[in-house]
Amino acid sequence: MRNTDTTIFETRESQVRSYCREWPAVFDRAQGAHQWTEDGRRYLDFFSGAGALNYGHNHPELKKRLIDYLTGDHVVHSLDTHTVAKRDFLQTFQDLILTPRGLDHVVQFPGPTGTNSVEAALKIARKCTGRQAIVSFTNAFHGMTLGSLAVTGNSMKRAGAGTPLYHSDVAPYDDYFDGETPDFLWLDRTWSDSGSGLELPAAVIVETVQGEGGLKAARAEWLRELESLCRRHGVLLIVDDVQAGCGRTGTFFSFEEAGITPDIICLSKSISGYGLPMALTLLRPELDQWEPGEHNGTFRGHNPAFVTATAALALFWADDRFQQQVASRAEQLHTGLQHIADSHEGAWVRGRGLLAGIAFEDVETAGRVQAAAFERGLLVETSGPSGEVVKVMPPLTVTETELEEGLELLTQACAAVTTPVRESALVG
Amino acid sequence: MRNTDTTIFETRESQVRSYCREWPAVFDRAQGAHQWTEDGRRYLDFFSGAGALNYGHNHPELKKRLIDYLTGDHVVHSLDTHTVAKRDFLQTFQDLILTPRGLDHVVQFPGPTGTNSVEAALKIARKCTGRQAIVSFTNAFHGMTLGSLAVTGNSMKRAGAGTPLYHSDVAPYDDYFDGETPDFLWLDRTWSDSGSGLELPAAVIVETVQGEGGLKAARAEWLRELESLCRRHGVLLIVDDVQAGCGRTGTFFSFEEAGITPDIICLSKSISGYGLPMALTLLRPELDQWEPGEHNGTFRGHNPAFVTATAALALFWADDRFQQQVASRAEQLHTGLQHIADSHEGAWVRGRGLLAGIAFEDVETAGRVQAAAFERGLLVETSGPSGEVVKVMPPLTVTETELEEGLELLTQACAAVTTPVRESALVG
Amino acid sequence: MRNTDTTIFETRESQVRSYCREWPAVFDRAQGAHQWTEDGRRYLDFFSGAGALNYGHNHPELKKRLIDYLTGDHVVHSLDTHTVAKRDFLQTFQDLILTPRGLDHVVQFPGPTGTNSVEAALKIARKCTGRQAIVSFTNAFHGMTLGSLAVTGNSMKRAGAGTPLYHSDVAPYDDYFDGETPDFLWLDRTWSDSGSGLELPAAVIVETVQGEGGLKAARAEWLRELESLCRRHGVLLIVDDVQAGCGRTGTFFSFEEAGITPDIICLSKSISGYGLPMALTLLRPELDQWEPGEHNGTFRGHNPAFVTATAALALFWADDRFQQQVASRAEQLHTGLQHIADSHEGAWVRGRGLLAGIAFEDVETAGRVQAAAFERGLLVETSGPSGEVVKVMPPLTVTETELEEGLELLTQACAAVTTPVRESALVG
Amino acid sequence: MRNTDTTIFETRESQVRSYCREWPAVFDRAQGAHQWTEDGRRYLDFFSGAGALNYGHNHPELKKRLIDYLTGDHVVHSLDTHTVAKRDFLQTFQDLILTPRGLDHVVQFPGPTGTNSVEAALKIARKCTGRQAIVSFTNAFHGMTLGSLAVTGNSMKRAGAGTPLYHSDVAPYDDYFDGETPDFLWLDRTWSDSGSGLELPAAVIVETVQGEGGLKAARAEWLRELESLCRRHGVLLIVDDVQAGCGRTGTFFSFEEAGITPDIICLSKSISGYGLPMALTLLRPELDQWEPGEHNGTFRGHNPAFVTATAALALFWADDRFQQQVASRAEQLHTGLQHIADSHEGAWVRGRGLLAGIAFEDVETAGRVQAAAFERGLLVETSGPSGEVVKVMPPLTVTETELEEGLELLTQACAAVTTPVRESALVG
Repeated sequence: MRNTDTTIFETRESQVRSYCREWPAVFDRAQGAHQWTEDGRRYLDFFSGAGALNYGHNHPELKKRLIDYLTGDHVVHSLDTHTVAKRDFLQTFQDLILTPRGLDHVVQFPGPTGTNSVEAALKIARKCTGRQAIVSFTNAFHGMTLGSLAVTGNSMKRAGAGTPLYHSDVAPYDDYFDGETPDFLWLDRTWSDSGSGLELPAAVIVETVQGEGGLKAARAEWLRELESLCRRHGVLLIVDDVQAGCGRTGTFFSFEEAGITPDIICLSKSISGYGLPMALTLLRPELDQWEPGEHNGTFRGHNPAFVTATAALALFWADDRFQQQVASRAEQLHTGLQHIADSHEGAWVRGRGLLAGIAFEDVETAGRVQAAAFERGLLVETSGPSGEVVKVMPPLTVTETELEEGLELLTQACAAVTTPVRESALVG
Repeated sequence: MRNTDTTIFETRESQVRSYCREWPAVFDRAQGAHQWTEDGRRYLDFFSGAGALNYGHNHPELKKRLIDYLTGDHVVHSLDTHTVAKRDFLQTFQDLILTPRGLDHVVQFPGPTGTNSVEAALKIARKCTGRQAIVSFTNAFHGMTLGSLAVTGNSMKRAGAGTPLYHSDVAPYDDYFDGETPDFLWLDRTWSDSGSGLELPAAVIVETVQGEGGLKAARAEWLRELESLCRRHGVLLIVDDVQAGCGRTGTFFSFEEAGITPDIICLSKSISGYGLPMALTLLRPELDQWEPGEHNGTFRGHNPAFVTATAALALFWADDRFQQQVASRAEQLHTGLQHIADSHEGAWVRGRGLLAGIAFEDVETAGRVQAAAFERGLLVETSGPSGEVVKVMPPLTVTETELEEGLELLTQACAAVTTPVRESALVG
Repeated sequence: MRNTDTTIFETRESQVRSYCREWPAVFDRAQGAHQWTEDGRRYLDFFSGAGALNYGHNHPELKKRLIDYLTGDHVVHSLDTHTVAKRDFLQTFQDLILTPRGLDHVVQFPGPTGTNSVEAALKIARKCTGRQAIVSFTNAFHGMTLGSLAVTGNSMKRAGAGTPLYHSDVAPYDDYFDGETPDFLWLDRTWSDSGSGLELPAAVIVETVQGEGGLKAARAEWLRELESLCRRHGVLLIVDDVQAGCGRTGTFFSFEEAGITPDIICLSKSISGYGLPMALTLLRPELDQWEPGEHNGTFRGHNPAFVTATAALALFWADDRFQQQVASRAEQLHTGLQHIADSHEGAWVRGRGLLAGIAFEDVETAGRVQAAAFERGLLVETSGPSGEVVKVMPPLTVTETELEEGLELLTQACAAVTTPVRESALVG
Repeated sequence: MRNTDTTIFETRESQVRSYCREWPAVFDRAQGAHQWTEDGRRYLDFFSGAGALNYGHNHPELKKRLIDYLTGDHVVHSLDTHTVAKRDFLQTFQDLILTPRGLDHVVQFPGPTGTNSVEAALKIARKCTGRQAIVSFTNAFHGMTLGSLAVTGNSMKRAGAGTPLYHSDVAPYDDYFDGETPDFLWLDRTWSDSGSGLELPAAVIVETVQGEGGLKAARAEWLRELESLCRRHGVLLIVDDVQAGCGRTGTFFSFEEAGITPDIICLSKSISGYGLPMALTLLRPELDQWEPGEHNGTFRGHNPAFVTATAALALFWADDRFQQQVASRAEQLHTGLQHIADSHEGAWVRGRGLLAGIAFEDVETAGRVQAAAFERGLLVETSGPSGEVVKVMPPLTVTETELEEGLELLTQACAAVTTPVRESALVG
């Protein structure tokens, strides 16, 4: 087979494939913030596996631990039997993540994907409350299996279910009405009114930043008000931290800035630290009402992922140096993005931490920027209901220089596909 | 932390854990048909990760390929961008599996677990037919996410949903009524009767052997009649080959013996060959009506699994030697199981190939056999709605000697917890 | 407007109208077993308002009581306030119907139609059991509102819902498989099997004769076995006696012959005795767990109907003379129908009591018989999923002579549209 | 049985009965605005059968027509065959109601109750649009059968379903947030946003005044904006005019004041004019996409109701004299209610036309007023989610004197159970 032959993908892989359509290349090797195609082209990767590669590709320390584990013939697949690797992960996660943050949640290992974690969260929330409805927010994304899809906003994806989707109510995300209405008026009022026709839900599920829904970031006070509303009405609060968690917004959990304590937390994507499938559902102890085996899955004991996860926690979260470094990069990123946005009419910076981007009024623009960036060696994707946002997610380990380079490439890409403000002013 | 300390599991892991309750040990290393605990106890593993380890633990050839891939800094996580590893897998899967069997299915990579594969299958079946109901069978198991759970029989697991489950109709599995009724009378009649109250379904989903439901194996003629029924009525046929596939019953797909061609095939568990998370949904080309990105998932591009999957296909499925070897072991297993069953009242052999076991009339027996086997160094699990079946799943690579040893341990375990026929006759 | 002008129906009434399409006439007056069109044509009415006119049109005794009531300015509309007319009805219904039959059911007055009675039955069954599914039978008909429609078999009517229909399971009606399977094998087995995938239902709802579904009549032993099955599993038994009740099959309740005692009984159609809207839902006392007003409806206190209902009970059900008379007419009817069926290939008598008819193998035949009968001055309708049954429902008060005349007209109509056996034999 | 014996109600009628608990009496005769108990007590009836007796009890003209019809042995029960009485009704309804108002709707006769009319409306809306969701408003009431209940707000009544209720979305009724949010912001925004998670509904169903929900009356401009919103998005507009229609608010249809044209209109209650069960569903011609018989019901041809309905239309709606008279009474009523409300703290007038009442801040007050009024010979009921509104619905034919008398009795009743403002001021 010659280099860059993509015939087999076109003839044998399902039409459902998507990213490969935007980035017509065959990737082979990767390291840190870079990927290389098999014909040797280098790309600066500000996509980071949609948030699954927060520590970059093939981090040397993690790789070493992983290869040692495999070489030693340690248990790879264990369902939920006890293994040394799983014990090490639990101990480290408790010591470095939960305890320092005052969280006493128990850890459930669902199937190793984000949607499995969300399914587990919704099931246990319904079981514990005896209620059925889940409130989700406009433009939310929580996954593609039927339970998660019911709390996902995108109409194309919802239609893919081929059946109605049940037991979900929608509420406006922060700033959905541009401040025209008081926050949470609708939920607070209808939950109090026995004639409203809306039942009290089991839970509210929320992303602190809507990674797929257009990079809207909820204000800390909005999140606090949401937590308070839930507490007042006895409704559980689930934070889906699959994309925004594991340091992406600057702290390990994305909700730390707001100072709230969710009842249930969904983690996946970067929890293994190496792009290996893994997911967790964290539950307040009183919600751990599962029967043994009531929710299971073949790959809930994926030990190579436990090994890299443990190593990543030890490497990056044992003290606050990594957080400070991420904070610096985040500042650099937002400054850069703001600079670009200022140069274009109808462009706004969105997001928080290293989960950020630029929304364009003309919904076609972001897709064109993505293509122009690819031509220039930069991988960035789009987000939002109409793909109207260019989403910029460098690895958290990106260097200042790499980030500078990426911003420069993005600036060029934007300039190539849009008419900057200045020029348009000159023309005017 | 001292050896065999399990405190952290008890204090920090969710109550949902189950296998570790039956096997109170901390496993550390594994090779072929064996696992070792951290304190050095050896176990003969006739559980095989519930079918995810058909080629045994840490197969040396696969391990070598995996470590080489990781060492070379090849792409680990790729969503659905093209990678060299994915291309190799697709090519090999086509050349060694699909083409020789005359299958022209396209390959979808859903999230890397069996339930994600089933969810994708149900969604596309509904989309393509415009119909909503799915017929599943009594005691079926298809997964724990909401769509898959709706076609799963177990009432405890169904109740875990916390909501009603929708759009599934149940039909009797082969021999559910011990031959008292003609096969498929109910489906054939109600699908033809516009007044029956049952709508024509989008699809039927079936396991050829019910791995979780008690090791009932459908007869080949029953499967052929099912295929014929579906064709006559324009209903799609989905085979969930997650547990019975990848050689477990003696052929790569479990339905080869019956000579049927499913419209959709779900694969996971042993497809990676190394216990790494991976899943496929195979679709007849005319069913590949997905929009790009209509069904997605973060870990659908798990390249280490592609690498071991490709190696496993090349190693075991390039010719028919492996199949012949599995056939010998299957014969040995069934002879051994029959010998045990003959020695006990109310015991019957169930299953097909190396997916087999012994059902006991007294539903408590199987659990006691599992415990007695564990004491003797043998891992076997139970199956069936009341856990009434001892399920024996050695790796397909098990040697004749290992299998002999396992059967001897199982014989001892059964003897220890039951009164064999002969003795009871003597007592009588 | 000239006589027989039907313009306003065609221009202003909805396309949903149906009977008027088969009987293109404008009816004006009616008495006993006859109706007259406004242009003076007389029809023998063996349709009886689909069972709402069991005592014929405008029975003189009932008419007198009705007009007296109206003349005296007694309360017509009362919701569920107490009225003298309602008290009289309750007392008479208790004394003449419930007490003599050993029934201690309480009486609920839902909205005055059959479907409202069924909706009330389903709601209270679900409330009392805490379960949601209702089992109904193939080809059942229970009404057109959403709850009743979910337990109705006809696919055209089900599709009219415009949404999926929920929480109903279907089981085969008596003889659905022509005796090929043991009765109730499916329900008994799946209700006992925690892995079946079918939940235990709140209730089973059954018609003893399927008035709309093709006049299949359940055998008494089948009904007794059904009652026994329900008792064993703690499932409620609802008999929908809307069409078969009020004497239509020979006894007041259609299930008396079988000797069963339903938990809930739905009555409507002929309960008022005069064709006036009225319905009852009868509940075993322990099932009367309604909150005040939990199920209501504006016309649940339709006093003119109470008045004629009371009069009809006193006139026809104070002793067994009426029953004996109905038995004679039923024998006469079945003899006559059998005679007709014997004269045609592929024709069978169906039904019980004065709810009977002839099923034709050629599904087009019954419609042609209906039309030929109409030409000859006889009103009979069709029944069954394909309208393949001619349904003959004279008033219970029909005289021997009238019945003879109707059978003669029906014989002629059948002869006109089919090739009788004898002739065909001669031709052969 | 002695006078006023209520034993049989207590022993034999279901606990679901409600009004009789508030008004412990046995009513016997009625005329105009009055009812008499069997022991001769007279009550001024400002309840009017919850809106089913807009022309008072036993109106002499209607009574005469009804008795003539019955005496003449005209057809009483006809399903949907053509009858003279039905033709007369259709012609009169067209000539006096539809044509003068520029409405070209076709007339469907569903089962003769409000909830049947609503069920038909929801079904056809779903069928015509191919969409499933229906938007209803907070505190709406549309009926007790499963389809109607799904669009009803009251949580006690919803729970009575015993199953989840499907395919309904809730929106805030006019002034639900006391003007804090722009009208229809939520619907307009989410219907336009493909990522909102809310599907475009088939229809919106609305009451112009919430008869059961607490007598909130929508402003004309709110209704117009709603119509405009629906038109913009291709959503059907259903007005449930069961309680507010037939003149109750001053015009025949309650929406005439707003100048809107609903796509579908539900009528029942007072359409027969005499308290006889009858209902209509009016459809724009292009929505009349029913198959013959796709929605049916035994009592859809209740001819006595057609006769009184025709007479009532001719008597009251042939010119605008009746409307003017109702306008005068409405003014008198509102003046009187305002006077009462002004005399009490925390009391407000609600409603429109002769569908009006007083809401009390203390939710216990209204029930006490109802009891005190009953003691004084006045029948008024309560409304609202907590029964916090005294609802005053005299017949539209009430005389000035009768209304004066009723207001005086109500004033006394209110005074008896509350501390009027003035006195409290004096005490203070």
